[in-house]
Amino acid sequence: VPGRPSLPREDALIERIRRRLPSSAGGVLRTGIGDDAAVLRPSPVNEWVITCDQFIEGVHFLDRMHPPDAVGYKALARATSDIAAMGARPRLFFLSIALPSRRTGLWLDKMLGGMARAAGEFGLILAGGDTARPGPRADAVALTVTVLGEVKSGAAVLRQAARPGDAIYVSGVLGAGELGLQILLSRLHKGPRWKALLQPHYYPQIELELGQQLANERIASAMMDLSDGLSTDLPRLCHASGVGAVIHQTALPTVSIPVQLQALGLEEINLALHGGEDYRLLFTVPSRVASRLRRKLGDARVFRIGQIQAGRGVELELPGGRRVQLAARGWDHFRGTVQREHPRGRRSTQGASVVE
Amino acid sequence: VPGRPSLPREDALIERIRRRLPSSAGGVLRTGIGDDAAVLRPSPVNEWVITCDQFIEGVHFLDRMHPPDAVGYKALARATSDIAAMGARPRLFFLSIALPSRRTGLWLDKMLGGMARAAGEFGLILAGGDTARPGPRADAVALTVTVLGEVKSGAAVLRQAARPGDAIYVSGVLGAGELGLQILLSRLHKGPRWKALLQPHYYPQIELELGQQLANERIASAMMDLSDGLSTDLPRLCHASGVGAVIHQTALPTVSIPVQLQALGLEEINLALHGGEDYRLLFTVPSRVASRLRRKLGDARVFRIGQIQAGRGVELELPGGRRVQLAARGWDHFRGTVQREHPRGRRSTQGASVVE
Repeated sequence: VPGRPSLPREDALIERIRRRLPSSAGGVLRTGIGDDAAVLRPSPVNEWVITCDQFIEGVHFLDRMHPPDAVGYKALARATSDIAAMGARPRLFFLSIALPSRRTGLWLDKMLGGMARAAGEFGLILAGGDTARPGPRADAVALTVTVLGEVKSGAAVLRQAARPGDAIYVSGVLGAGELGLQILLSRLHKGPRWKALLQPHYYPQIELELGQQLANERIASAMMDLSDGLSTDLPRLCHASGVGAVIHQTALPTVSIPVQLQALGLEEINLALHGGEDYRLLFTVPSRVASRLRRKLGDARVFRIGQIQAGRGVELELPGGRRVQLAARGWDHFRGTVQREHPRGRRSTQGASVVE
Repeated sequence: VPGRPSLPREDALIERIRRRLPSSAGGVLRTGIGDDAAVLRPSPVNEWVITCDQFIEGVHFLDRMHPPDAVGYKALARATSDIAAMGARPRLFFLSIALPSRRTGLWLDKMLGGMARAAGEFGLILAGGDTARPGPRADAVALTVTVLGEVKSGAAVLRQAARPGDAIYVSGVLGAGELGLQILLSRLHKGPRWKALLQPHYYPQIELELGQQLANERIASAMMDLSDGLSTDLPRLCHASGVGAVIHQTALPTVSIPVQLQALGLEEINLALHGGEDYRLLFTVPSRVASRLRRKLGDARVFRIGQIQAGRGVELELPGGRRVQLAARGWDHFRGTVQREHPRGRRSTQGASVVE
């Protein structure tokens, strides 16, 4: 159109992202994408919870191994799991992308497709974000997701209120995310045979309904999501609450490793203790409430794995009754042992073990 | 401590960041760093504005050229300028970092020092964030900042309500950020001679007080901040409002280029039209209000540069009175002409010009 200067390409990219993700303003979102900032109209009876999470090629996912729609799904699921872990209802998200030119085509559309599916399942609306090129020495996609959720005032469940005597629960089997990762790293992911076992790694299911129930009915005294592995995350909850814990090895809900995969050298108990990316809820319940928990929760799959105790540190009670200290062997970006060619940095958990 | 497992190093890094930035919970921030998500207790009479911004090594700043404290200051200032442009008061921020190991030492401390200074000036408290390694092919720092501000309900100034006849203003001289960048790219930044001219590029001053006044006193009909250059940003405001504009070249407040720098081939008018990163406010005012603006604003330095008109596109009125279309020549990450070795992607603005 003569006399009508075109808007720059960055605006076109933003428009393309906007069209592929749910992004209509309305309700709490007074103004969404397209201004300097989004405008939120908060409800007077609720509080807001906010979290940020990065999802980086070569660290959290691998080029040519992870399907782009799984990248989009998982980037949003990981961040939204933190909203679930506060007991809040997801409402809005912001997407910042550093995008190399080789990823602006079909890959981007498929990634956004996976993210749109996650947004739809979680009830999230895109409210804004940022686009940029990665640096000249960085030919990799980096996504940073900010998610906002709403929770009744005072109902958010923190990490800091676990008390000695509280029962410790997890909301599903542990190790399924890690098993999927190991199948991928062993290059067994291409055929259909292990497809079902890859799903928890590609498309982790997060615990939105259970988290909201545990918060709104004031069931949980403390809660977090299991993203880095039980042996890393439970000490964090204990540290925040100023308490210790004991967990019973025989009570851990483990994933089953098919016979054909046993050559990978994985052990179910190590996957359960140290495997990351399960996105199950880890929560504590006062003992008087724990006795009525089954009735309150109905069909929800929760497992009582131990209890909070006075002191510091996390003990593991072995099948014979002997107790050992549980060392943190989960994922940590900043440990010296990080092997950067693999997502989440580790070759395998097979070296993971308990130490005395 | 025997029996007390140490928390992983990522937690130690987070603790180090927390100690160096203002991060105390209280007031609107019910729970800050250390849980799965931050918890906000909003005021019932206010709305919230939220923005995200990336600041990436090799794109937005250069290794060995930009001082680390300027990186920290500017990363936060850029994002907070979007809060100013809505007329809101900055409250909380979240910092996500992808950090190579070579940057976890003194560089990190200095960067956080600059960011702490900005946070103090702007009234921002760190409420959370995320840390990760960059990918194996990405040996560069990437910062993503999310900033939240508060504004009286209904007072936020959007881009979309400029109307024909409204006067167009900018809140300071244009081109100072670009001039600083050009001094840096010409390697003239090491000596003391041009130190003062580098400041607007290293430590951009943002317009928090003016933005809040323009919003709270309902002076501005539309507003945004000038981050990518007037010739790129004014069309965005016009597009959002469904209007056109004319600006008067003789009315543009330009930066003075010292005689000794004229060998760089820069022109003041091109810096003003196309230079980026000024972080001045661009706003429109209904004509009946414009006549009383000087009295309302007191000492604030604002310049009337043109007016909104019906139609589409932005015209530039040259000194002789002839009008030409103004082409967008500001910063755009996704244009084919991006030269990635330079921050903000361009070698210079000297090729920038008006086109008919």
